[in-house]
Amino acid sequence: MKIIVVGGKGTLGRAIVDLLSERHEVVVASRRTADIEVDITSADSIREMYESVGHFDALINAAGEVPFKSLADISTLDYREAIDNKLLSQINLVLIGMDYINDAGSFTLTSGVLSHEPVVLCSAAATANAGINGFVRSAAIDMPRGTRLNVVSPTLLTESVDAYADYFPGFIPIPAATAALFYLRSVEGKLNGKVFQAVP
Amino acid sequence: MKIIVVGGKGTLGRAIVDLLSERHEVVVASRRTADIEVDITSADSIREMYESVGHFDALINAAGEVPFKSLADISTLDYREAIDNKLLSQINLVLIGMDYINDAGSFTLTSGVLSHEPVVLCSAAATANAGINGFVRSAAIDMPRGTRLNVVSPTLLTESVDAYADYFPGFIPIPAATAALFYLRSVEGKLNGKVFQAVP
Repeated sequence: MKIIVVGGKGTLGRAIVDLLSERHEVVVASRRTADIEVDITSADSIREMYESVGHFDALINAAGEVPFKSLADISTLDYREAIDNKLLSQINLVLIGMDYINDAGSFTLTSGVLSHEPVVLCSAAATANAGINGFVRSAAIDMPRGTRLNVVSPTLLTESVDAYADYFPGFIPIPAATAALFYLRSVEGKLNGKVFQAVP
Repeated sequence: MKIIVVGGKGTLGRAIVDLLSERHEVVVASRRTADIEVDITSADSIREMYESVGHFDALINAAGEVPFKSLADISTLDYREAIDNKLLSQINLVLIGMDYINDAGSFTLTSGVLSHEPVVLCSAAATANAGINGFVRSAAIDMPRGTRLNVVSPTLLTESVDAYADYFPGFIPIPAATAALFYLRSVEGKLNGKVFQAVP
């Protein structure tokens, strides 16, 4: 299969690229130097990426950042930023990608454990992540031409423990290489509308 | 208690007002003629509402409309409209209301069964509703001064069957008066961060 991995230069993205490259043609897209540069907050940039790649069989997104602030410090703009960066950006990858994806192809997005596990400072991430899961479950039943739409919701990654452990007391992390397996299941399996909980 | 019911002129809102008025002081807010007129998509209008009401013990929101379109017809703008009207508007009711709510007061928002039950044409509603649930679960643990934050997720209302039954084949509706009971539980109970599934 020809598979685009957006955010393929990040901790999770690299693990996905490593795993899928063993038996697929992988195109790495990222804000930074990659096969293709893309800014997923820009619909124009997304369309340019698809135009450049041409037809494909699977799109995986592992990009999308959100602000972390307490409820006392957070503003509407922070929620809007989280929604633009992690929710609407991923919806756009699907809506625009529909014009380029092959029959029976798949989109696999990324949410995260914060969608349903409350953690301090993380309500903007929780809002965006839960929104993605809702979008995927619902839009999946309306996908045309046998195409599929899933999302992986990873818990804290082992590689990110040093940076984020204070936010996630007692959470059991998983290696990025383990989280990557769930993306493989989404791409090579036949499920549609599935929220894969990438937890131990 | 002094309770503000936003959207208090709608099908669900009227039932909530009827139930709570039996033993509380209820202020009805709505886009249409009411005790107070408010447009929840405007932060300025929300602040004017709170300034006009003054301190209060509970805020219930039953307002928020979303577009219904198939995945083939829907655009980013439709998702943004759903997010502005039903997700960011409700977040703003909480963020701004924090300056006016009494200690140990509560906010009760509204999502809906579409957050987790896939229905055709409803992916924008699903996205916004799931986002609200994520926001409430997460922000609840960060609420100050003993204040609480919950959300009611109603299924199809009996009063709305004529208008919406085609979208919800086989769904068992509940009367608005039954859905209103979940708002009473949220306001008079002590739960925080709860997603009340208002289903039969």
